[in-house]
Amino acid sequence: MVVAEVRIELKPGVADPEGQNTKKALELLGFKGIESVRSIKFFEIVLDLPRNEARKACEEMCRKLLANPVIQSYRIDIK
Amino acid sequence: MVVAEVRIELKPGVADPEGQNTKKALELLGFKGIESVRSIKFFEIVLDLPRNEARKACEEMCRKLLANPVIQSYRIDIK
Repeated sequence: MVVAEVRIELKPGVADPEGQNTKKALELLGFKGIESVRSIKFFEIVLDLPRNEARKACEEMCRKLLANPVIQSYRIDIK
Repeated sequence: MVVAEVRIELKPGVADPEGQNTKKALELLGFKGIESVRSIKFFEIVLDLPRNEARKACEEMCRKLLANPVIQSYRIDIK
C-alpha cells in the first residue's frame, strides 16, 4: 500500500483568481507583508500497487483527469 | 522573504465528497487498486516577514479565513 501525493498547480503566467482574491481578503483583514498567494490543488491517493506502478498510474490519472495540461503542471510524490 | 506552505485538510471522519467522486471517476476510467482519494487544499504564501512572524501570521490567517476549524485541520511549513 503506497500513498501518492499529487500536487497540481497553475503554470507560471496563468491567472490565479482564487489566490489573488485570498490575498485581497487577507489584506482586508489587516495582514501585512503578503507578497503573493497561490492556490494549489492536492490529492492524497492511497493505492494498493507496487511503487513504480503507482507512479505510472498517478501520471496517467493526472493526464486523463486530475490536471489540465494546458494551464496546470503536476508533481507526484510516492511515500 | 519567506515562502509559507499552508496545507488544509478535512479532519478524520469528515465526509470528503470531492475525494470520493474523484475516486469514482478514476475507477470509471479503468484505474485499479485505488483505496482512497482525499482532496486537500494548499496555499503557497510569499511573505515579507521574518520567519517566526511569518509562522504566527499564517496561523492567524488559518484561524481567521483559510480554514474552518470545525471540520478542517491545517499545517504550516515555512521554507
